[in-house]
Amino acid sequence: MSSQVASPLTDLYGPIRADLAIVEHVFDEELSSDLACVRDLVDGVRAYRGKMLRPALLLLAGQATGELNHRHHVLAAVVEMVHMATLVHDDVLDHADRRRSRPTVNAMSGNVTAVLLGDYLISHAYHLCSSLDSQEASRYIGAATNRVCEGELLQNHHCGDDQLTESQYIEIISRKTAELTATSCMLGAWASDAPADVLAAMRGYGLSAGIAFQIVDDVLDIVGQEGEVGKSLHLDADLGKATLPTIHCLAHAPREAASRLAGVLRSGLFKGNGELRTWLEETGSIEYALGEARRHVGDAIKQLELLPAGDARSSLTCLAEFIMARRF
Amino acid sequence: MSSQVASPLTDLYGPIRADLAIVEHVFDEELSSDLACVRDLVDGVRAYRGKMLRPALLLLAGQATGELNHRHHVLAAVVEMVHMATLVHDDVLDHADRRRSRPTVNAMSGNVTAVLLGDYLISHAYHLCSSLDSQEASRYIGAATNRVCEGELLQNHHCGDDQLTESQYIEIISRKTAELTATSCMLGAWASDAPADVLAAMRGYGLSAGIAFQIVDDVLDIVGQEGEVGKSLHLDADLGKATLPTIHCLAHAPREAASRLAGVLRSGLFKGNGELRTWLEETGSIEYALGEARRHVGDAIKQLELLPAGDARSSLTCLAEFIMARRF
Repeated sequence: MSSQVASPLTDLYGPIRADLAIVEHVFDEELSSDLACVRDLVDGVRAYRGKMLRPALLLLAGQATGELNHRHHVLAAVVEMVHMATLVHDDVLDHADRRRSRPTVNAMSGNVTAVLLGDYLISHAYHLCSSLDSQEASRYIGAATNRVCEGELLQNHHCGDDQLTESQYIEIISRKTAELTATSCMLGAWASDAPADVLAAMRGYGLSAGIAFQIVDDVLDIVGQEGEVGKSLHLDADLGKATLPTIHCLAHAPREAASRLAGVLRSGLFKGNGELRTWLEETGSIEYALGEARRHVGDAIKQLELLPAGDARSSLTCLAEFIMARRF
Repeated sequence: MSSQVASPLTDLYGPIRADLAIVEHVFDEELSSDLACVRDLVDGVRAYRGKMLRPALLLLAGQATGELNHRHHVLAAVVEMVHMATLVHDDVLDHADRRRSRPTVNAMSGNVTAVLLGDYLISHAYHLCSSLDSQEASRYIGAATNRVCEGELLQNHHCGDDQLTESQYIEIISRKTAELTATSCMLGAWASDAPADVLAAMRGYGLSAGIAFQIVDDVLDIVGQEGEVGKSLHLDADLGKATLPTIHCLAHAPREAASRLAGVLRSGLFKGNGELRTWLEETGSIEYALGEARRHVGDAIKQLELLPAGDARSSLTCLAEFIMARRF
């Protein structure tokens, strides 16, 4: 039950450390099974529970707006379970073989097991959520996963699309990534019985932070070092996914480079990232993407002005700042 | 919104025809999306909504135990959505290319889209379920999908296992198939505010009927005609899945045939079903499996004795009988 939280985050998690341990316990309890083969798989996937970012956001939002209670612990375990389900399925769809410096479920046990394990995790997330005394949280979680799935379907629909616009990209990542961080923050305030304007502010914080997080994630996919990031990299261009740096580069590169990059995205066959990095450096597209991420971080922090000052609010501020510093 | 229910069932659905139309409306409303690419996929998958067996069971159980209301309509749409999600994912995992005489989602749009669309359907099932005024049904649905996923994981764990016992096989199909029919019937009675013994009887009916249904399904996989059944056949042995006829055959065939069949299951490479059928005929294994299915149908019908006589109960009796007659 020891926390596997990455070290640069542990200070920020200070105000909620004891509660995170309770969340891990709720999480483990929910995933217990009478079947040995299921227990083995769940043990294997537990290593994915790395940063616990969404539970931490939910708990910090809850503490910044009221007092933590049983609902926070349950909902924090729920959002982490939803997140893990999306990771397991994403790794199948992206043919990724490394995550948190370990083999992915699909790499270890095959695609069939990984699809089924993702289904098992999402089922338990809803099952756990419906143990609460109100349907409201279940409805919020259901609405959030609807939008996450839509974001994934939309991204898949635009696979190989070299005409993807920046606003379409933001629409995709708002749904597939930022929706869950937004809902996590909002549910933290909801479980503290905070008023509607605070719920909206926390949702806004989580949405902007989630967008910034995904932009940085997409930048790391291009410029990150696999040893530091701990997962398979350079997949986006290989899979024909346009991201903010490549969208910017397509619009600003000399005609020939743009045309070759467009060909890479359409064919989904980019081997090695040396050439891509050169193009992106020449057009300043990495700086542009990081600048946009920084802007969203600023938007996120602005939403916190509504909250009373304190350790939890400080941690939320630092967590947003941390998005720009992360290398993993 | 016209019902696509297969003709031999339409008479049995007589008592609930108007309600099934409402269920289809609830189903369609829930799956509406602002994204065109999502709408197209949902339109494509609507053709899977064939027999509407689980909604019909839920409505008939509801009518046999009380009066149909809004909760029945919502829950009937929920169980059908859960069922469709499992079909979409199963077809990916089984590499199946035909269902209801049409191409499967994976055959039409690829595995990535099919995995995501299955996730989208299950998400909407939970979202819809949590629109009800009580958490109880959501908790039942979550518990059911937990067990369905466990059944699938257990089946996958035993893939290529030529030592699978009959009781392990029954355990697998009880979870992966019969759990959802059992929960459908139980929820029908629950939404009618029926007492606990009636809920247990309806759950028992659905469990036995579901087990019989899956045994017959597995027999049809071997002896069915693709044109009649409307989906890819002869997949189980190819995929190394032992089913009741092959388990019986392994135990009763002459040593050489049994050893070759065991090899087929271990390797998961059985091309053509001519030889398999001969082995099964010689050991009477198809008759044995159908006899077991018939026994479970009898168990199902016995559970109905608790209910008042009437059209709904008659339909439930005939639906159980129909399992033995079905060719699709």
